[in-house]
Amino acid sequence: MSGNTLGLLFTVTTFGESHGPAIGAVVDGCPPGMPLTEADLQGDLDRRRPGTSRHVTQRQEADQVEILSGVFEGKTTGTPICLLIRNTDQRSKDYSNIAETFRPGHADYTYWHKYGIRDPRGGGRSSARLTAPVVAAGAIAKKWLREKFGTEIRGYMSQLGDIKVPFVSWDAVPQNPFFAADLAAVPELEAYMDALRKDGDSVGARIEVVATGVPVGLGEPLFDRLDADIAHAMMGLNAVKGVEIGDGFASVAQRGSEHGDELTPQGFASNHAGGVLGGISTGQAVRVSLAIKPTSSIRTPRQSIDKAGEPATVETFGRHDPCVGIRATPIAEALLALVLMDHALRHRAQCGDVQVETPRIAADLPPSAA
Amino acid sequence: MSGNTLGLLFTVTTFGESHGPAIGAVVDGCPPGMPLTEADLQGDLDRRRPGTSRHVTQRQEADQVEILSGVFEGKTTGTPICLLIRNTDQRSKDYSNIAETFRPGHADYTYWHKYGIRDPRGGGRSSARLTAPVVAAGAIAKKWLREKFGTEIRGYMSQLGDIKVPFVSWDAVPQNPFFAADLAAVPELEAYMDALRKDGDSVGARIEVVATGVPVGLGEPLFDRLDADIAHAMMGLNAVKGVEIGDGFASVAQRGSEHGDELTPQGFASNHAGGVLGGISTGQAVRVSLAIKPTSSIRTPRQSIDKAGEPATVETFGRHDPCVGIRATPIAEALLALVLMDHALRHRAQCGDVQVETPRIAADLPPSAA
Amino acid sequence: MSGNTLGLLFTVTTFGESHGPAIGAVVDGCPPGMPLTEADLQGDLDRRRPGTSRHVTQRQEADQVEILSGVFEGKTTGTPICLLIRNTDQRSKDYSNIAETFRPGHADYTYWHKYGIRDPRGGGRSSARLTAPVVAAGAIAKKWLREKFGTEIRGYMSQLGDIKVPFVSWDAVPQNPFFAADLAAVPELEAYMDALRKDGDSVGARIEVVATGVPVGLGEPLFDRLDADIAHAMMGLNAVKGVEIGDGFASVAQRGSEHGDELTPQGFASNHAGGVLGGISTGQAVRVSLAIKPTSSIRTPRQSIDKAGEPATVETFGRHDPCVGIRATPIAEALLALVLMDHALRHRAQCGDVQVETPRIAADLPPSAA
Amino acid sequence: MSGNTLGLLFTVTTFGESHGPAIGAVVDGCPPGMPLTEADLQGDLDRRRPGTSRHVTQRQEADQVEILSGVFEGKTTGTPICLLIRNTDQRSKDYSNIAETFRPGHADYTYWHKYGIRDPRGGGRSSARLTAPVVAAGAIAKKWLREKFGTEIRGYMSQLGDIKVPFVSWDAVPQNPFFAADLAAVPELEAYMDALRKDGDSVGARIEVVATGVPVGLGEPLFDRLDADIAHAMMGLNAVKGVEIGDGFASVAQRGSEHGDELTPQGFASNHAGGVLGGISTGQAVRVSLAIKPTSSIRTPRQSIDKAGEPATVETFGRHDPCVGIRATPIAEALLALVLMDHALRHRAQCGDVQVETPRIAADLPPSAA
Repeated sequence: MSGNTLGLLFTVTTFGESHGPAIGAVVDGCPPGMPLTEADLQGDLDRRRPGTSRHVTQRQEADQVEILSGVFEGKTTGTPICLLIRNTDQRSKDYSNIAETFRPGHADYTYWHKYGIRDPRGGGRSSARLTAPVVAAGAIAKKWLREKFGTEIRGYMSQLGDIKVPFVSWDAVPQNPFFAADLAAVPELEAYMDALRKDGDSVGARIEVVATGVPVGLGEPLFDRLDADIAHAMMGLNAVKGVEIGDGFASVAQRGSEHGDELTPQGFASNHAGGVLGGISTGQAVRVSLAIKPTSSIRTPRQSIDKAGEPATVETFGRHDPCVGIRATPIAEALLALVLMDHALRHRAQCGDVQVETPRIAADLPPSAA
Repeated sequence: MSGNTLGLLFTVTTFGESHGPAIGAVVDGCPPGMPLTEADLQGDLDRRRPGTSRHVTQRQEADQVEILSGVFEGKTTGTPICLLIRNTDQRSKDYSNIAETFRPGHADYTYWHKYGIRDPRGGGRSSARLTAPVVAAGAIAKKWLREKFGTEIRGYMSQLGDIKVPFVSWDAVPQNPFFAADLAAVPELEAYMDALRKDGDSVGARIEVVATGVPVGLGEPLFDRLDADIAHAMMGLNAVKGVEIGDGFASVAQRGSEHGDELTPQGFASNHAGGVLGGISTGQAVRVSLAIKPTSSIRTPRQSIDKAGEPATVETFGRHDPCVGIRATPIAEALLALVLMDHALRHRAQCGDVQVETPRIAADLPPSAA
Repeated sequence: MSGNTLGLLFTVTTFGESHGPAIGAVVDGCPPGMPLTEADLQGDLDRRRPGTSRHVTQRQEADQVEILSGVFEGKTTGTPICLLIRNTDQRSKDYSNIAETFRPGHADYTYWHKYGIRDPRGGGRSSARLTAPVVAAGAIAKKWLREKFGTEIRGYMSQLGDIKVPFVSWDAVPQNPFFAADLAAVPELEAYMDALRKDGDSVGARIEVVATGVPVGLGEPLFDRLDADIAHAMMGLNAVKGVEIGDGFASVAQRGSEHGDELTPQGFASNHAGGVLGGISTGQAVRVSLAIKPTSSIRTPRQSIDKAGEPATVETFGRHDPCVGIRATPIAEALLALVLMDHALRHRAQCGDVQVETPRIAADLPPSAA
Repeated sequence: MSGNTLGLLFTVTTFGESHGPAIGAVVDGCPPGMPLTEADLQGDLDRRRPGTSRHVTQRQEADQVEILSGVFEGKTTGTPICLLIRNTDQRSKDYSNIAETFRPGHADYTYWHKYGIRDPRGGGRSSARLTAPVVAAGAIAKKWLREKFGTEIRGYMSQLGDIKVPFVSWDAVPQNPFFAADLAAVPELEAYMDALRKDGDSVGARIEVVATGVPVGLGEPLFDRLDADIAHAMMGLNAVKGVEIGDGFASVAQRGSEHGDELTPQGFASNHAGGVLGGISTGQAVRVSLAIKPTSSIRTPRQSIDKAGEPATVETFGRHDPCVGIRATPIAEALLALVLMDHALRHRAQCGDVQVETPRIAADLPPSAA
């Protein structure tokens, strides 16, 4: 387990580099007997796919996934599922000018120091392209959770740079390239991104992910709490610099009489906790927020050094997302699904089959906090 | 690994409950030959110990640690180090009135649902008392990191409720019970806490932890990134609801030309990244922020239910910290030390012995961001 | 997981040295709600205990186990169970003469080379004394397996030096200090051991362990097969040099038409496989054999070297078992129980609750192969 | 880690089924900077390949391996290495007649009971075909061990059915299809196999594997001893029913004065231990023996049952090895290499860089026990 495997029982091991022949993942531990085809995975892959609007990288990748193993006659067999995605639109020459220097804020500095070698083509292993196999694997988990417990995992972008986007409706999310939950905000976002591209700069974003229909009891304290494993998975996503569960940093200024979610016979009266208490799911919606930093590869010239330690000015051309946060929503959903599924399996290992409780949510909670 | 083990190579497995006979930890994977005595561990234990000021729980525990194994003639032997701390001041009768109900915001609800059984005495396994063995184990890691790389790990409280406490000096931190880095702020903090106790309420806090002298190259992407494992460890600490690395959520509103830390032959010119790029340490200070929620056990009456699902009013007496964040600083330091040490061992497994680089920090960074 | 943890979901982490203050184990992942007291563990500890006959080491240890955590009001809570056994009869001075030399066939050579330091008192960490916590942990697994599936795990010694001891009856085993399944063989074994002690020499032994009532379906191929994990656990026991499942090495000279166990509607007609096919339990008896080498600490003078590499003659006094195999039976039973329980939990994680099949054993199999 | 990953730091995760589109492995944790091409792997793959003599299965597979990731400009980058082997000569119709019945001694019975579903084509996941990716992965480990320590790992068949084949010379091994170390024995082996095929039966074999140039100090007691992990890996190979280290079961009848290897300033005077003491390598040759059972798929009619539990007669056609042991030698070598490499990395994680000792072997040991 040299770092490329996520999960203990439902595991995802990814491989590949941005400009290698292929990327993919081996998913181990999937329960047998679940119907599964490539079509079950392609929907989320298409949501994450590059080149679908002018606001993301223009690299053209179909991201067609092939299931190489673990499925027989349309059903999972309980053996490893290998997911393969061929790279098709590499333009490695774009990167020759940055092979000798380090982009400020980019992993090329640390990869080179750690391994003494790095693949500069498209960021190599550190590329956000490697989130594609995670999304495919997450779609397996999403399907299993939905069929087993009725769990639904959805996300949206709640902030782009300093523009906050309110939650209006889940229906809005698939109708715009920003995964915004408010269609009225889209023109402002488009104008912002157009100006940003013109500037040759990049910007950060904030993503919210919500899982409803989560069984009570998932999480393995003390250390492998559900929220701890969610934080691990989310902070492992490229460019993430912060993770919150429930009220997150707003909890700092709250009093206990405000933060602690009261209970009634009908369920919880609020969800400040974000669906996790003591590291174990409460049955309420699991709410997670992510802070995503601005892309480090920008056209704006920056001061840096080369491999010899000499000063250098770095301008990055090639094809990059000016806001990696835009495509992060389906990835964050996938990661949450993977963690929940791993914990569902861990739970039933120790405690027997998981009980789906009567929904423990009072009626008056807003949809985004349900 | 049913959740009570932290780390892959330098592992800490804790055991015990708040009111059981003892709590402790088994630390496995410690390099052999390091001088170690109980005195090396007691300092941090004393910093975390309850009953040391009127602002924390009045439970009296000496928290004397006993090393049961793994040390021979004052040196580690490379075999498991068992750390034992006897509980001495349990008052289990205080909890009899809450054994049948669930405190809003408390883990007793989820433990009971997960395991079908719970130890109500002092929160049982979910008690913050279980952070004592973590602090003892962390002191081993701190010592090894200091001797091996010169790493220093320090923390402070930067916010209590809505009172922000600026960083003035590391010297201030040990001189007040709040771990504040500004002695001028202490009177306001004391007054705030006194009023809070009178109200029978609790409040949240924000903690900063900084590690300097970290070697470049620690972290195992894609999933076991250094920041991901830090997030896992920190979110696994009682009451933590948010974790940030470097600029954290402030990164959302930053542009790439601002966030990406420029490099000069003398080192990095800033540290927005918080010492981690692409999941691997840069050699700069690793900066982590934690959001800690208000204690759930408060005297203020709250609406809840009992085990039968019937409505109940809960008022929690017993001895509790009105702000668990106050004692969290040494725990957060310990967790950061444990993660760094685990990754130092993982790094040399794959890449050979760790190189300590010339400090890669430009001279003008403030001490808290060095 | 630096080598001192056994299991993935039901884990045992041991600590301690032969002459330290205490030895013990942390057992994590135990299902909650199982009645458990020290008395449940003491029986097997007493079977393994030293000093119970003239044929084993004369060290006097009561091996009283204390449960420090994980049990509340007589039931497991699902949290870590810490088992502590105090050492009481250390005589460390006996070992001063061997601290500078290496006993032929003993771990002191390799521990010293690996760690650069070793605890010579009683073998330190490499002592067979460290099997006591394993036996205590195994008793938890035995109890759970018995209550859940009706699994029974029993062992006996089938060979001592060149004396083969036939299986006659399980009833004989607890009636003699050799764990022989044939009381008629006991006088010969006693005479053999008396002569051996007089010679100042030691001898090997062969142990058989059989688990009946094992559910079908346990085992996680390709690598974590049930038989592979059994081999791992057994070869991890002090002095074991060989492990067989079912017919073991006899399979080499068998033909497929003889070895493959035929099936009838009433069950398997034979059990050459030893209860495992393709790494997964068949529901038949799991049969395991162990080869245990002669004790390396003997009075007979042997040629060796000292730490400086100079020639030395080594004679080992102190208190040692002249045949470590004699006390190995309860340990091997414990290890088999631990592996089976871990796999029972792993199985239900992926495949849901374990089904106990109608016993798949034809009526005419001998009890030792049932 | 649902069973399809071998190793802790140098990990191999395999995927694929006998008649699926492809099989392969993801190798994680390889040190960066090692030259590696497909040619480095193909040699051992060709040694294991089917169809190379009349004594093995006639399935024609080129077993051409493709490196999909982890290598850049001919060197490992420290990121996961995906190895892909396309299946080309599936004849799934051969298996339609056994899809409803269970072959005596075959994994189809247990896979069906465990997973409730099985892929009957060529044994699906349980096929020995899945050892091909293991051999490819093992070739990476062999290369690293050779370049780092001068380790050589070689094996031979020492028994086929009841024909014992003495060790004469390593040179003989590649010169015959049986991996026999005595060319004089080959005619008898050929005649035996020809008669066996005519009988429609199968037979077992015994394999020896020897690693020389192993550094002292590898192994992580108490549980992850080097020999324990070797036993785990070897017993995880298809059809293996027994594993011995060093003298193995012969140790049972030995006395301590015979078994314990004496030391001289020039090194060990013998190698009964097989290169492991206390679970840690001694620097001597690591010697491992395997018992391989006869193939379960034979033409000889056998009594069995079908999925409904009704009696059935099973005769297996299709293409099978009449002695799976014949091709097992390179696989066993690969497994030993994988375990040694994993432990070399684990060792340097805890203890720092591995020291290669002066060879600790006295001059008069036979080559097969060096």
